[in-house]
Amino acid sequence: MTFLRNAWYVACASDELADKPLGRQVCNQKIVFFRDADGTPAALEDYCPHRGLPLSLGFVDGGHLVCGYHGLVMGRCGVVQSMPKQRVDKFPSIRRYPVIERYGFVWIWPGDADAATPDEMPVFEWAEDSRWAYGGGVYHINCDYRLMIDNLMDLTHETYVHADSIGQREIDEAPVATRVEGDTVSTSRFMDDVEAPPFWQMALRENGMPDDVAVDRWQVCRFTLPSHVMIDVGVAKAGRGGIDAASSEKVSGTIVDFLTPETESTMWYFWGMARSFSPENKELTEKIRKGQGEIFAEDLEVLEQQQISLQSNPGRRLMTLDIDAGGRHSRLLIERMLKLECESSQQHRS
Amino acid sequence: MTFLRNAWYVACASDELADKPLGRQVCNQKIVFFRDADGTPAALEDYCPHRGLPLSLGFVDGGHLVCGYHGLVMGRCGVVQSMPKQRVDKFPSIRRYPVIERYGFVWIWPGDADAATPDEMPVFEWAEDSRWAYGGGVYHINCDYRLMIDNLMDLTHETYVHADSIGQREIDEAPVATRVEGDTVSTSRFMDDVEAPPFWQMALRENGMPDDVAVDRWQVCRFTLPSHVMIDVGVAKAGRGGIDAASSEKVSGTIVDFLTPETESTMWYFWGMARSFSPENKELTEKIRKGQGEIFAEDLEVLEQQQISLQSNPGRRLMTLDIDAGGRHSRLLIERMLKLECESSQQHRS
Amino acid sequence: MTFLRNAWYVACASDELADKPLGRQVCNQKIVFFRDADGTPAALEDYCPHRGLPLSLGFVDGGHLVCGYHGLVMGRCGVVQSMPKQRVDKFPSIRRYPVIERYGFVWIWPGDADAATPDEMPVFEWAEDSRWAYGGGVYHINCDYRLMIDNLMDLTHETYVHADSIGQREIDEAPVATRVEGDTVSTSRFMDDVEAPPFWQMALRENGMPDDVAVDRWQVCRFTLPSHVMIDVGVAKAGRGGIDAASSEKVSGTIVDFLTPETESTMWYFWGMARSFSPENKELTEKIRKGQGEIFAEDLEVLEQQQISLQSNPGRRLMTLDIDAGGRHSRLLIERMLKLECESSQQHRS
Repeated sequence: MTFLRNAWYVACASDELADKPLGRQVCNQKIVFFRDADGTPAALEDYCPHRGLPLSLGFVDGGHLVCGYHGLVMGRCGVVQSMPKQRVDKFPSIRRYPVIERYGFVWIWPGDADAATPDEMPVFEWAEDSRWAYGGGVYHINCDYRLMIDNLMDLTHETYVHADSIGQREIDEAPVATRVEGDTVSTSRFMDDVEAPPFWQMALRENGMPDDVAVDRWQVCRFTLPSHVMIDVGVAKAGRGGIDAASSEKVSGTIVDFLTPETESTMWYFWGMARSFSPENKELTEKIRKGQGEIFAEDLEVLEQQQISLQSNPGRRLMTLDIDAGGRHSRLLIERMLKLECESSQQHRS
Repeated sequence: MTFLRNAWYVACASDELADKPLGRQVCNQKIVFFRDADGTPAALEDYCPHRGLPLSLGFVDGGHLVCGYHGLVMGRCGVVQSMPKQRVDKFPSIRRYPVIERYGFVWIWPGDADAATPDEMPVFEWAEDSRWAYGGGVYHINCDYRLMIDNLMDLTHETYVHADSIGQREIDEAPVATRVEGDTVSTSRFMDDVEAPPFWQMALRENGMPDDVAVDRWQVCRFTLPSHVMIDVGVAKAGRGGIDAASSEKVSGTIVDFLTPETESTMWYFWGMARSFSPENKELTEKIRKGQGEIFAEDLEVLEQQQISLQSNPGRRLMTLDIDAGGRHSRLLIERMLKLECESSQQHRS
Repeated sequence: MTFLRNAWYVACASDELADKPLGRQVCNQKIVFFRDADGTPAALEDYCPHRGLPLSLGFVDGGHLVCGYHGLVMGRCGVVQSMPKQRVDKFPSIRRYPVIERYGFVWIWPGDADAATPDEMPVFEWAEDSRWAYGGGVYHINCDYRLMIDNLMDLTHETYVHADSIGQREIDEAPVATRVEGDTVSTSRFMDDVEAPPFWQMALRENGMPDDVAVDRWQVCRFTLPSHVMIDVGVAKAGRGGIDAASSEKVSGTIVDFLTPETESTMWYFWGMARSFSPENKELTEKIRKGQGEIFAEDLEVLEQQQISLQSNPGRRLMTLDIDAGGRHSRLLIERMLKLECESSQQHRS
């Protein structure tokens, strides 16, 4: 097993789930998502207990899920509600999954439902503060989600993979520092007294600041379990404290990455950017979203080809340089938790 | 093994087999069909004994099959006839399959040729009686053929799968009765005193009857070995005896379904409708054929998704409700015959 | 194993390898090809030692190969040259392959580098003599390369596979003679006193000879290890000695076939024609190349279908007629060498 099950993963963006059921595989489990009569999301195994059809091929009626084959009506808890001309009280139930809608996403707990901890959902300031704006999207990628963790925790790849867009020499020339604090791994890179790249020039102007001054630029990648990577990025007038400068002297944002394993070798990638400047400017949100989507698409081929290459060289070990320390420590955190999860599930069985 | 081999299956419609060879897999066996000089169909394993090329890539010349690689000429019994510059009398023969053309179809016996029983071909009145007209087609489906048996022996699915066309509430509200008589399983549903749906209103008019009267409607599904499902359907003026009403008081037809396993998880589906009204109206035949083709295509996605879902949940058992009794008894008949077939083949070997 | 490794294979045409790296699999090994600063080709395993990305996704800079993920710079011998902000002297090297550019192709030795014998490269007159012209191309085929050897060593298939282009009855009516001399297998067919087919009529005219006279025509297929097939073809005025006629009395050329196994069941096919008439006529070269490409494409479907058919009939043996003797003896030569290669590699290990 390469991923935790007892954890909250993003299953879909809230706007992916409207009045139709959505079938999506998470952590090797085929799940159907739908909204009940109140609009509250529900998640069940995607399997009709009658004849095995995926329930996601059916439709939602009055907050229940109706199988598209013979009309079995399934409730949000996995208990059959009715079926034409049938008594259903002895029908087998199907598995339900804990699910929470928050921050514009539907979150799923693919593991042991009794162990679910809705109170321990991560907190994302940018998602609930009107001084922030967010835009993003979702990609399906044929790679182990941990390759994407490596990718995001080591931005030196920007110089090569994104050579034509956001890459610049200064990124791979600046030293990088990796720290592990509790359940967070962070990798920081500070580029002092540099020219602001085009994106940040635009951001400076949006924030009413001159765009032709030297800046201190930063990238702080933060990994948290099970597989979230938040990257704080920004620029400040040179010499005013960088990331700690007064808000009038800087512009900043957070690159948001939620990685959801689909199988051991495929994943869902929820990407976006939250920014703390011009939050009301929806055109800007869309423009950034579009640009980011194009840039992140460049990672897809690299990751899928890396997956194929690693699979055809199974015995071989990757190198771990300083730039890879963020990914390595993130993987170690996952492995430590996997061991705990495994022990805990064995105790439950005994 | 999930299908009988010592049985007659439809291999293709007669008009699929013209002057070119046809390669088609039946019951896991790759077979080439062609017509000899008299136009009589022949069936051989699809394998040139010289270098293994499928003979179906070749051509027919003077009623023989010519290999498209080096010109080996194969006769209808699987014996090599000639080859340029070669003496062929010691060439190995290839397997031939018993084959019969009847009812507008070419039928194949994929099992033991010595056990073939041409006299026991099923009899289909509609196919040889000028008071009937027939139209149909063929679909390839990625599912176990038994899922299609279930589908056809339980028409409650029409309300859901065909909600926009032939489905109506009355179907899944009427009780269903299943009977096993010898080698036939039948499932009957009678809907008395209902409004005729659009198709049957048209049929009533074609038969010179008023289309706005209440009718008794019936659906009688009959499964016979190895995998034929005939569904007698019709409407009669309400209260005149339903399916047994005088022919002047009713219109009726038969939905024809020949299911041919290609492999354990794929099949050929020969579908059509025979009707006993306006048999001379070819436009009507074509119109019904087109409509039926569209409706039956709706089953394809359901069956293929069901197949995938069952394959990824191998240990799980399906439920068997009253509506599923037709399918279940049909499967039991097949299993009983499979056991006999297996015992018989072991006796032959010992 | 079905192919030799200690041998020179064509990896690509020289003009396939320009300023970008080329990833290509040869004998089950994924290899990246590129040109160093002098334009000399290099071949390495297609795997970045840092994070496993195929190096062929990167770019060439100053004769080195730069990984497209994090900028590792790889030298032509498989030794890491540099990487941004890293000391690379302890980085692992990757495998390099002996490679030679000759005759307009890049040749690779996929086996033991120490055993490579650049002095034993085959000699092809047509490639280095200005009295000859050459044109050709490359196809990828999903078949065991030995099926292509069979195909080329038995031209009777032309009558059937190429019935609409170069096939003619005289080919499969003329007797064929196969000889093994050392490491060469040859299959000869002589058609005396026949009408020249359209291609050769054109060639006669190009050579200033009448095109309406009876000719003696020949096809001499020569297999050499590991998997080259040269086919000498031509026509001479009837009765003037055929293939041995004075050059003023004949026109001739060589069909060039280099077969490179990609895997056990796929291959690269480098095909072309060298001719010894009108070598300066580039339009003619292009015209012949185009025609030959169309004809050779006809073999693709046959070979891929034969591959599928043989794979699904694993226990079955092919027939070996006189016309198949060329292929059979070529395979025997390969098997004999494979045995030696295997013994030699075991000796090295012990």
